Amino acid sequence: MSAERFEELREAAWRCNLELPERGVVLYTFGNASAVDRERGVFAIKPSGVVFSDLKVEDMVVVDLEGAVVDGRRRPSSDTPTHAVLYREFAGIGGIAHTHSTHATAWAQACRPIPILGTTHADLAPGEIPCTRLMSAEEAAGDYELTTGELIVERFRELDPLQTPMVLAVRHGPFAWGPSAEKAVEHCVMLEELARIAWLTLAIDGGIQPLEPWLSEKHFRRKHGGEAYYGQGEGRS
Amino acid sequence: MSAERFEELREAAWRCNLELPERGVVLYTFGNASAVDRERGVFAIKPSGVVFSDLKVEDMVVVDLEGAVVDGRRRPSSDTPTHAVLYREFAGIGGIAHTHSTHATAWAQACRPIPILGTTHADLAPGEIPCTRLMSAEEAAGDYELTTGELIVERFRELDPLQTPMVLAVRHGPFAWGPSAEKAVEHCVMLEELARIAWLTLAIDGGIQPLEPWLSEKHFRRKHGGEAYYGQGEGRS
Amino acid sequence: MSAERFEELREAAWRCNLELPERGVVLYTFGNASAVDRERGVFAIKPSGVVFSDLKVEDMVVVDLEGAVVDGRRRPSSDTPTHAVLYREFAGIGGIAHTHSTHATAWAQACRPIPILGTTHADLAPGEIPCTRLMSAEEAAGDYELTTGELIVERFRELDPLQTPMVLAVRHGPFAWGPSAEKAVEHCVMLEELARIAWLTLAIDGGIQPLEPWLSEKHFRRKHGGEAYYGQGEGRS
Amino acid sequence: MSAERFEELREAAWRCNLELPERGVVLYTFGNASAVDRERGVFAIKPSGVVFSDLKVEDMVVVDLEGAVVDGRRRPSSDTPTHAVLYREFAGIGGIAHTHSTHATAWAQACRPIPILGTTHADLAPGEIPCTRLMSAEEAAGDYELTTGELIVERFRELDPLQTPMVLAVRHGPFAWGPSAEKAVEHCVMLEELARIAWLTLAIDGGIQPLEPWLSEKHFRRKHGGEAYYGQGEGRS
Repeated sequence: MSAERFEELREAAWRCNLELPERGVVLYTFGNASAVDRERGVFAIKPSGVVFSDLKVEDMVVVDLEGAVVDGRRRPSSDTPTHAVLYREFAGIGGIAHTHSTHATAWAQACRPIPILGTTHADLAPGEIPCTRLMSAEEAAGDYELTTGELIVERFRELDPLQTPMVLAVRHGPFAWGPSAEKAVEHCVMLEELARIAWLTLAIDGGIQPLEPWLSEKHFRRKHGGEAYYGQGEGRS
Repeated sequence: MSAERFEELREAAWRCNLELPERGVVLYTFGNASAVDRERGVFAIKPSGVVFSDLKVEDMVVVDLEGAVVDGRRRPSSDTPTHAVLYREFAGIGGIAHTHSTHATAWAQACRPIPILGTTHADLAPGEIPCTRLMSAEEAAGDYELTTGELIVERFRELDPLQTPMVLAVRHGPFAWGPSAEKAVEHCVMLEELARIAWLTLAIDGGIQPLEPWLSEKHFRRKHGGEAYYGQGEGRS
Repeated sequence: MSAERFEELREAAWRCNLELPERGVVLYTFGNASAVDRERGVFAIKPSGVVFSDLKVEDMVVVDLEGAVVDGRRRPSSDTPTHAVLYREFAGIGGIAHTHSTHATAWAQACRPIPILGTTHADLAPGEIPCTRLMSAEEAAGDYELTTGELIVERFRELDPLQTPMVLAVRHGPFAWGPSAEKAVEHCVMLEELARIAWLTLAIDGGIQPLEPWLSEKHFRRKHGGEAYYGQGEGRS
Repeated sequence: MSAERFEELREAAWRCNLELPERGVVLYTFGNASAVDRERGVFAIKPSGVVFSDLKVEDMVVVDLEGAVVDGRRRPSSDTPTHAVLYREFAGIGGIAHTHSTHATAWAQACRPIPILGTTHADLAPGEIPCTRLMSAEEAAGDYELTTGELIVERFRELDPLQTPMVLAVRHGPFAWGPSAEKAVEHCVMLEELARIAWLTLAIDGGIQPLEPWLSEKHFRRKHGGEAYYGQGEGRS
């Protein structure tokens, strides 16, 4: 395959990687985004350890869904195996973003899901933002990044990844996805904001209960599914 | 009515919508502002689900005080019925703004009014920033956004909306208003700051009591009413 | 006196007023700065209720040390009587700044002095940042802004305002001063930072004791007084 | 030695000093950075008390590893003796940065090391960020800045400064270093972020335990040492 064939995919991934530091959810090299081309079975991802301000479109590495490099001069992000698992297992997603954003990472470090406490949260996900279980010493000694992805998939066994497009990798930080890489970045930014508002809410009242189910359902359905009436009718937004 | 007739109203609403993300109180599409023309009985409001950076003056939708579209190619904000109720019930207001700003939303999620703890607050409102009561499952199943507005009106039965130009919609986020859309935005920005200072104050001393009444009255009267001596004599500021 | 004679003084005050929102310690009209000319017995101060972005040099109002307008077309800041008392009573100061900056205001609202917990603080003041006593109902009913200044002076009876160039006006917010208006603004900005670090320190360990006296003395003397060895020898910085 | 001979060293130090306020870890003159030339046994450091925005390349002062001025018209930073000790004792380091950044300083003021609570931290250091012991009155009365450096060295007796490239000077603030001055600045910025996430983590769950050792080891080895597989193969990043 020639490099030109991936130009558009690379550019989508590149633009989304640049947006991460602009939106304040990434410092230095602590994050990455990817965009998938389902027809060709490849995704473009940030190269490992390269500072965002130096990134060029052609630096983006194109890999297949097993994480093997298909095109590119760089070594792909060390998190590539995590992205690959998610693309294999979550059929409907078009992009993934990963950050170490401050408040979402604090919840991940505290090994806690983010409770649903208000309608901002309900606009994005119908329930708590899940947190993966702890990786055992044996698992960590194996293929660490692959296992990170597998634990996310394990956590979503009874959850729909299209309805809850975000997760906390325990002790590590957030991953988010969406129908496009652009939406994946948006979900990372909003997850950071949800995480911040949730901790402030609990700091104001540690005993506050989760959002009443009729409010979470109402808000989620305003924006998602057949009864959605939010937006200009262009589908899920 | 021809579109030109609403040009000025649209521009006022458009400018105020743009100010929301610039002032840091709105991310993505999480907020909106409107401006009313009392003589014609219409207001201009942000279209639903459109990113602020893409907004053009002509995108603003003109609706009547029942929320029915009078002019515009877009679908109005899903919060339009809330704005409409407030314009119908609060006679003196000229503009409304709604955000999910971090600290004000945290207080709303904690189902708590913001206590008046200092003179910054007293400069804006004479007492606590009220919080609406929780919506029942039956109410939420009906016209949700209309009910949001009705619960705000219910909360203001014994409050003057011109003196207290802001409220927390419980579990949701803040709404603010004022003599103009510009002032409504200013009140949203200052409400976020009041909410932030109040939570920090309580984090320093959880037992602190509300501001002494003679100080809240003094500060409020410095800026509001016949004895006001703040500003350049141009009336309420 | 002709307006030209105050051009330099006005410009110094104007520049410092503009710096307040740039440094993030003032929103809208919530703050002001002034610069004094000791020889002529006048100071230039921000006009009341004017947004900083609209301020022009010629808007600055020149008043005498009783607060009476000497030159200018605008009404001076409503806080002018507070500035006037401080210039009358604190002989060595050349400028004053007042803000409602977030963390300093939270300490003021909590009616608490800011304890000295580290060397950043000790570089600026030798002990806690004092907080004025509460104003009585009778005092508030009188000349409120004058009394605000008098309570600051009362609080400094046993403190040297040149050593501790900042104070919290209880329930209200910070005032700072210095040898120049520029230094007064710097002290306001650093006070906000001290207030923020102090609250975080206590949030990490609520039982932490004040800085050991030998460290506070050492740090203060590095920068102040005859044994100072910090800076380029240009005196206090 | 002629000034030209140090041009490159001065420029490296100058660039890193400018980056400190740009990255938000320094206000006014509260911080400094230096770069060492091991072959000539000199380092270039910020002059004392000069505002960053006014800094020129030629203002950087070149001193030897005892802290004596070798070249330059300015007085070097008052923290020069601290830098000198660290360069003498920590053989492999190429640059040092010092700030009073908000959250790292709060941990230093609370006299607490920063516990390792997640993989962001483990990417930078294999264990807690150490905090020096308190300086006695006798020590503070002597050469304060020299002693600050000596207490850092004392704290690292059983720690490898190349593996843990950062420390909290108790009651004071952070110092960080690295193979270059650029990396020293990066470590200061990331230390501030670690400090912020750690306090938020503990605010969410005060009883959270340190990161499981197999996760801290795994993450540290991803980026450091012979088994590193992060980055483009250019060595430690």
